[in-house]
Amino acid sequence: MTPVKELAERAKAASRSMSRLDRRKKDDALRAIAARLRSNTASIGDANRRDLERAKGAGLSGAMLDRLGMGPAAVEKTAAAVEHVALLPDPVGSRSGMQRLENGLLVGRQRLPLGVIAMVYEARPNVTIDAAVLCLKAGNAVLLRGGKEASETNAALGALVREALADSGLPADAVQIVPATDRDGIRELVQLTGLVDLVIPRGGEGLVRFVAEHARVPVLNHFKGVCHLFLDEGCDADMALALTVNGKVQRPGVCNALECLLVHEASAPSLLPRIGAELIRLGVEIRGCSRTVELVPGAKRATEDDFGREFLDLVLAVRIVQDLDAAIAHVDRYGSNHTEVICTDHHRNAERWLRDIDASCVLVNASTRFNDGGELGLGAEIGISTTKLHAYGPMGLEGLTAEKWVVLGDGQIRG
Amino acid sequence: MTPVKELAERAKAASRSMSRLDRRKKDDALRAIAARLRSNTASIGDANRRDLERAKGAGLSGAMLDRLGMGPAAVEKTAAAVEHVALLPDPVGSRSGMQRLENGLLVGRQRLPLGVIAMVYEARPNVTIDAAVLCLKAGNAVLLRGGKEASETNAALGALVREALADSGLPADAVQIVPATDRDGIRELVQLTGLVDLVIPRGGEGLVRFVAEHARVPVLNHFKGVCHLFLDEGCDADMALALTVNGKVQRPGVCNALECLLVHEASAPSLLPRIGAELIRLGVEIRGCSRTVELVPGAKRATEDDFGREFLDLVLAVRIVQDLDAAIAHVDRYGSNHTEVICTDHHRNAERWLRDIDASCVLVNASTRFNDGGELGLGAEIGISTTKLHAYGPMGLEGLTAEKWVVLGDGQIRG
Repeated sequence: MTPVKELAERAKAASRSMSRLDRRKKDDALRAIAARLRSNTASIGDANRRDLERAKGAGLSGAMLDRLGMGPAAVEKTAAAVEHVALLPDPVGSRSGMQRLENGLLVGRQRLPLGVIAMVYEARPNVTIDAAVLCLKAGNAVLLRGGKEASETNAALGALVREALADSGLPADAVQIVPATDRDGIRELVQLTGLVDLVIPRGGEGLVRFVAEHARVPVLNHFKGVCHLFLDEGCDADMALALTVNGKVQRPGVCNALECLLVHEASAPSLLPRIGAELIRLGVEIRGCSRTVELVPGAKRATEDDFGREFLDLVLAVRIVQDLDAAIAHVDRYGSNHTEVICTDHHRNAERWLRDIDASCVLVNASTRFNDGGELGLGAEIGISTTKLHAYGPMGLEGLTAEKWVVLGDGQIRG
Repeated sequence: MTPVKELAERAKAASRSMSRLDRRKKDDALRAIAARLRSNTASIGDANRRDLERAKGAGLSGAMLDRLGMGPAAVEKTAAAVEHVALLPDPVGSRSGMQRLENGLLVGRQRLPLGVIAMVYEARPNVTIDAAVLCLKAGNAVLLRGGKEASETNAALGALVREALADSGLPADAVQIVPATDRDGIRELVQLTGLVDLVIPRGGEGLVRFVAEHARVPVLNHFKGVCHLFLDEGCDADMALALTVNGKVQRPGVCNALECLLVHEASAPSLLPRIGAELIRLGVEIRGCSRTVELVPGAKRATEDDFGREFLDLVLAVRIVQDLDAAIAHVDRYGSNHTEVICTDHHRNAERWLRDIDASCVLVNASTRFNDGGELGLGAEIGISTTKLHAYGPMGLEGLTAEKWVVLGDGQIRG
């Protein structure tokens, strides 16, 4: 048996008892993980320093090094996040939609864990803890395959989680750190039918595509976010400005940042000069269609390539469109099923946007930045799925469970 | 472009307008399909006769020929089923869980169609209509890849559905009959990433496994049903008999028929002789463990192979187990995540069964035969999924849709 398969077999065996745990036992284990994180701050820092030195030697960019860091502040923040998850309701065992049928059967659904979840991700070692505790709280076992850059940090974090589980009387095997070798290792992991119930890839587009192309087990993709904001005819000018600036500037490097502004041609002359000037003042590079360039001094001419692009930077594509239909057609063509906003005061247009746009989160008069598990009330998120099935949008604890049918009878048979 | 890919491209293009239709337009189209079924009864019968003659020539079994038949009675039954689907609520556009957050955002989920669904199935030509109308009602386009045996019947049915769509102002391309060539054609179909949103295989285990192994797009498997009934200590003797007989005898050839009876050792001496005698009287062959054979005159000795087996016939495996834990362990090992029943009067045991059994439908004191979309109140079903994600158990219209997040704001931005 290969090493990866052996880890998966162990996780599978542990998943059965994980699925049958009381909430209290799981929450106690989570608190034990938080405590161990704090008491191991120094040794986590040591492992992380070795990763950082290796990364510097390999010439990683400053932004990448920043993501890789796991100093005392990051450890404390992670521990606090674990304690927060312990406070969230346990989705497992909850029943919904229980209805009494004519024959007396009481029928509905009951949540159960998925089983074994494989996380495949890059950089950020805090994901190791965040993903582990969300999977555990939802009664799953988890295989954690992080990036090579963070391998020492991830190994240290994985070891302490396993110790905390064992101390709490839970199976340590419910959490497995899969060594970050090469992509063959990922390929093997995502083809373990019967052992892995779901794989969640998080990271660059290359990694997500690799997983999607090679997986034999169900995948919830977390693809890029090419998020649009459409400023409708007659929309509120101040709101249009605020939503544009917030979407683009507040945190440009994340997947729910605004990447493309669409403006109704009737509103463009009044809205765009002011919005454009403010964006440029804030350091945003504007790449606009020909009419945008006429209205916004300092705007550059966009190439076809700039539409449908995830800049993750202070760059915004801008296009003036004829009407709502043209805006929807643009999103159909260039969107990434992530986050799409309309700014409008027309009820019908708002409803058409909500119906016609196929994206994990569709918003009316609110910033793209709200497509986030915390902001939408999930308490915590393991990522934002752009796969339509099972979970579309932010995935929290509920997204890490499934529902079975339950039927309570009194001897009913079929006639 | 290959022929299969071209059909999928056309379905994809049609799916966009399908997703934006009012319920009334879809229901009118469904009624037009029912009308055309009735007015084409003769020509459907002609096509079906050609399929049946070819099948007889190829030496298909009587049961297979029976499944293949599409005479006037089957056409009328199918047309009536289509009209029934027209009466069901449309899941598309319904909103749920709308909550007002502290910042004033109104947040919840709205149902949307999946897009393009590929059905891969065998024999029974009525599936062509049943699957098409369920997919259409849920706003999807559908690729129908039926069995080679039914190819003339399926072509005739597909043509009339497309005519009915065109007559109703809907895109005929929303329904595509994929020619039944060889398994390479299926392989190509289930690897059309970006064109096919979901594949649903229905048929023999070989077909379902082939699809599961080769798919690159999400699959909802419909694997076999190895359904168990556990008779707990102290359960009602009459109920135990009724549930056993109904599960095994009422319709032995279907996936929710009972295949294995587990009996608590304390109850076996009082229950098994009577149940065994009744089953044998009804023509059931009993394959039991050594103790079963002692208690039931006429029972045969089971081999290891008889446990975990889907007989689809008047054959029942029987095992006496030590207690509830042993029964659960047996189901863990031999079950197929389909349908599992406990007959008990102990509250705790009932709750443990509901929690611990991982199956699409878990029942207390009711026949296995109730795991069915119609019986559980779905109105109609496209199959019973044994895949845990997205839909576990009977899949109706709701299972053919997904949910996106919707956010209604008044200019909210993130701080």
